[in-house]
Amino acid sequence: MPDISRRGQLMPNSPIRKLVPLAEKAIRKGVKVYRLNIGQPDILTSPNAIHAIQTYNVNIIDYGHSAGNESLRKKFADYYKKINIPLEYEDILITTGASEAITLTLLTCLNAGDEIIVPEPFYANYFSFATATDVEVIPVTSSIESGFALPPIEAFEKKITPRTKAIIICNPNNPTGYLYSREELEQLRDMVRKHDLFFICDEVYRDLCYDGGIFTSAMQIEGIEKNLILIDSVSKRYSATGLRVGVLASRNRDLLQTALKFCQARLCPPNIGQVAAEAALDSPPEYLEYVFNEFLERRNFVVDALNNIEGVFCPLPKGSFYVMVKLPVDDAEKFSMWMLEEFEYKKQTVMLAPGSGFYYNTSLGKQEVRIAYVLKLQDLQNAVECLQQGLESYPGRISPETTVDHAKIRLTKSI
Amino acid sequence: MPDISRRGQLMPNSPIRKLVPLAEKAIRKGVKVYRLNIGQPDILTSPNAIHAIQTYNVNIIDYGHSAGNESLRKKFADYYKKINIPLEYEDILITTGASEAITLTLLTCLNAGDEIIVPEPFYANYFSFATATDVEVIPVTSSIESGFALPPIEAFEKKITPRTKAIIICNPNNPTGYLYSREELEQLRDMVRKHDLFFICDEVYRDLCYDGGIFTSAMQIEGIEKNLILIDSVSKRYSATGLRVGVLASRNRDLLQTALKFCQARLCPPNIGQVAAEAALDSPPEYLEYVFNEFLERRNFVVDALNNIEGVFCPLPKGSFYVMVKLPVDDAEKFSMWMLEEFEYKKQTVMLAPGSGFYYNTSLGKQEVRIAYVLKLQDLQNAVECLQQGLESYPGRISPETTVDHAKIRLTKSI
Repeated sequence: MPDISRRGQLMPNSPIRKLVPLAEKAIRKGVKVYRLNIGQPDILTSPNAIHAIQTYNVNIIDYGHSAGNESLRKKFADYYKKINIPLEYEDILITTGASEAITLTLLTCLNAGDEIIVPEPFYANYFSFATATDVEVIPVTSSIESGFALPPIEAFEKKITPRTKAIIICNPNNPTGYLYSREELEQLRDMVRKHDLFFICDEVYRDLCYDGGIFTSAMQIEGIEKNLILIDSVSKRYSATGLRVGVLASRNRDLLQTALKFCQARLCPPNIGQVAAEAALDSPPEYLEYVFNEFLERRNFVVDALNNIEGVFCPLPKGSFYVMVKLPVDDAEKFSMWMLEEFEYKKQTVMLAPGSGFYYNTSLGKQEVRIAYVLKLQDLQNAVECLQQGLESYPGRISPETTVDHAKIRLTKSI
Repeated sequence: MPDISRRGQLMPNSPIRKLVPLAEKAIRKGVKVYRLNIGQPDILTSPNAIHAIQTYNVNIIDYGHSAGNESLRKKFADYYKKINIPLEYEDILITTGASEAITLTLLTCLNAGDEIIVPEPFYANYFSFATATDVEVIPVTSSIESGFALPPIEAFEKKITPRTKAIIICNPNNPTGYLYSREELEQLRDMVRKHDLFFICDEVYRDLCYDGGIFTSAMQIEGIEKNLILIDSVSKRYSATGLRVGVLASRNRDLLQTALKFCQARLCPPNIGQVAAEAALDSPPEYLEYVFNEFLERRNFVVDALNNIEGVFCPLPKGSFYVMVKLPVDDAEKFSMWMLEEFEYKKQTVMLAPGSGFYYNTSLGKQEVRIAYVLKLQDLQNAVECLQQGLESYPGRISPETTVDHAKIRLTKSI
């Protein structure tokens, strides 16, 4: 048979999904598996979306516009105006999830061999999208000890080469939960302007900012209108991940016109998903409050409970619904596999996303895991108890570093 | 601002969709536009699909499996078994339309710079998918005078280089309607085996074979199990193009495992589309009969009526719902634009897909258009009348070649 492509070989297995077969095996043995590995909340989908699907009444489910339904683009523009993000509907393309929006952005802005700078740890699929488009990921490492704050801008400057075409951030961050400040965004803006880079901002978690942390959209930072691409999605805001409806927005019309050509090739985004998304954007404020309060309560519990486990360290994140957690283990991937294959506590176990999958250099994050606090409080309580028991029994347990304890005191004191 | 990527610049505007703004303008002037440019039938969507959507009853629209819902994969496997296509459900990945299936296949099988051979005219988006994945399209030209039969295999052999990795065909063909015979597929099989190429077969129109023409799936041709990739979709069979549900199938498990890594990066296909597709696969035989009979009647009318217009030539295609038609005009794209911008007949006009967009070398097909006979008979009658009137008034009308008349006699005699 002919060879599989190199890019196919380079493509990583999703660190979020690659343990799925082990979890399925555990479930077949009758073990309850708490899935903290994936950003799939147990939050109810916006009832508006469900209602729109059930009352969907057409005779022909036909192609839509390649740019997305105009009514949905206008609804998004209204939504952005309400939250002071200056976008017209013509600035907005509807995509098949934020995933497609990022892939189309890379295709539109970068050539094969071009480089994109990403603060790490980063959403693992950024690396996958880059691999699929033959783009080189250049990481700038942030550290758990500083709560994953933006590294000094000099660290970014050092990585810039003639092939650097773009920088991508996720704000609030997946996997770290870090919320970038206006000052940090302005530092990035200055660098973007100085080197004339594209600036890709993935803001799908913008509604989830805690402790009075103020969300600043990159679209609210002036002076880089032509460089900026906003990535968005209805998946997390309305707990409707399966709809596959996202947004690629930019005030650079040339860029958008080029992205539209890629959109034309795949014809249109999913029709019913768009109808449901449009209804979801009209969700009542009470729905978003319910979502926010659920995640706030869960975050407060999870961060506190994890830090109370000996040797575990988890900074207090101000956004999204993830935490990166340092565990007293030899290898967090081995530990995650062991939890599914060999461990159970009261017929339960926990599925984690090994941290190294969120770093470019997979030797980093060896003691870290990403936890998505997407389950209801009672489940999270059981899951954390399981994790604690697992850590006590795990043969590869090691002593925690003392630096972690210092950071723990400093970074989690607001709990 | 930074430069748009070269691949973005190379990306063509869809020849099927690029006249949309002109059509919208005509509609705003109150002109009725018959859309023969795009494969969007006015056939009713399978009621099973609509029913499944309206009775969709969940609390959380969550991520599905990256490979697609297992129940849908099994339903597809059952369907394939019934039509003697030997595939297990593990051989099947669900994709976001056939479009994504082809893109993922190119990413999995070819590197940037590799070559794929395609008989032309070809579905225009093949070129777009190749451009998006930095793959080189190498065309082998078929001709309207031979009804777009497979060119001699020597013409393919001549195009093979060390960079050739794959060949792609669409059977029955879009845009020509040509139905490849078992003998032609076996010729391709021998070449594929000799040069160890991937063989990508897009069979989304397999239900539409007329005049007793027998559809042979490439999956029924033995000896190239590891080389073969089947592309499929529910869009055309169940008139549900907006669902965005397709299939990438192969008995090469290494290939499928690699494709799955790309699937993981985009998380999952659209959830509700999959539910609707699963229901559609259980559509009663009467539904498929209705679809078939509609298209058969339309084809018979369109081919006959077009050939009755002086100077127009349209071979009699045995499959799909497209015809490539030769018009007595200086430039079919100019004519198509003129029809929308300057012409109307009884407040009506016709939207066509210029033929050159279906050729690699756009100087070919300059007198051809693709017509999708996707409208009901009365509309087709009006559209053909419009086209005839348009051809009579068009300032760029030219005299037809005599070769066309000979082919017309030979290739359309069964009407």
